[in-house]
Amino acid sequence: MQLGILVYPQVEELDVVGPWEMVTTWGQLPGAPSSCRIVAESTQPLLCAKGLSINPDLSFGNCSPLDVLIVPGGQGSRREVDNPALISFLAHQGSHCQAVLSVCTGAFLLHAAGLLSGRKANTHWGSLDRLRALGDVTVVEDRFTRDGRTWCSAGVSAGIDLTLRYIATTAGEAVAGQVQLATEYFPSVECYGEASANPGAPNYLLG
Amino acid sequence: MQLGILVYPQVEELDVVGPWEMVTTWGQLPGAPSSCRIVAESTQPLLCAKGLSINPDLSFGNCSPLDVLIVPGGQGSRREVDNPALISFLAHQGSHCQAVLSVCTGAFLLHAAGLLSGRKANTHWGSLDRLRALGDVTVVEDRFTRDGRTWCSAGVSAGIDLTLRYIATTAGEAVAGQVQLATEYFPSVECYGEASANPGAPNYLLG
Repeated sequence: MQLGILVYPQVEELDVVGPWEMVTTWGQLPGAPSSCRIVAESTQPLLCAKGLSINPDLSFGNCSPLDVLIVPGGQGSRREVDNPALISFLAHQGSHCQAVLSVCTGAFLLHAAGLLSGRKANTHWGSLDRLRALGDVTVVEDRFTRDGRTWCSAGVSAGIDLTLRYIATTAGEAVAGQVQLATEYFPSVECYGEASANPGAPNYLLG
Repeated sequence: MQLGILVYPQVEELDVVGPWEMVTTWGQLPGAPSSCRIVAESTQPLLCAKGLSINPDLSFGNCSPLDVLIVPGGQGSRREVDNPALISFLAHQGSHCQAVLSVCTGAFLLHAAGLLSGRKANTHWGSLDRLRALGDVTVVEDRFTRDGRTWCSAGVSAGIDLTLRYIATTAGEAVAGQVQLATEYFPSVECYGEASANPGAPNYLLG
């Protein structure tokens, strides 16, 4: 089982590394996926949205068919929806993957590749209206949502929750528990400021 | 105000990028720190613990005095406690920083640099006994702990909670709230498997 995370200039750092940490920790357990690779248009160093420089493992041309593809969001996704190389890679891989998982505004890349039409989806709370405006997506304001083999999370950090649930669904709750314990992912529930008073706050924060 | 994150071969990815996402998001708000840089012994590409390749911004020799230094953990920390270049950089910077924050087994690097003796500290649940064995540290099994200008978090993902609390303490709850909302850090509280049944589970999971 081969996993890939799709990256591009100005991809959001935690959108990438949250899921990466979960799947690579899973990958160290017995019977787990063979590996996870970072895939990009080229293997040149790539600058993420907040300035972290990373080196992709594989270019699109050198990437074998993936079993699972994770598509992070970030400022660069607004440009990449119009990048034929990225969108055709995503459409081609997405047509045979067991699962495609988007994080945050990665949902717009899935849509551009024809993977979201007629499906439930979500995205960063600040882009929910933009997702609704696409017209052919049912927007669900949960922490993450699944529609068949397509999974979408809310913004940035929500990719961690999405990936852990994906692991639980695929490999069982006990395996997800091992990943959660290894990464000590028992987060604080502290809420700073008044997020729920923000008019754009997603429904899952208000419930 | 200049922040730095110290990295080394086999540093754990989320230990780095969790705090990075929080401080760089803070850095985009008015009146926030000027920047955060990734600092390493050399600026050559560096392989993290789970295989992600990153490019540090600065070498130790080119790093000006920092106001805040964040020290992630990871498998490589077991080797780096014996690296004089890293430990002397940390001791020197740590002697004048406003705050030094360790994540996970980064606490052992702080200790090797003389920054934890006689202080409260914590680390990844699986290394709590090793931290106790140092003899001159008071181990606190919370999500994170503070002792003066020294802050330590529990394992891996706990660096996010630590950094958000540091921002709240330094810049106010409202600013931390803006960072939390931008990164949509309202994590799921779902617990998979039976983490609390693990004999090594930290106290904050049992309470």
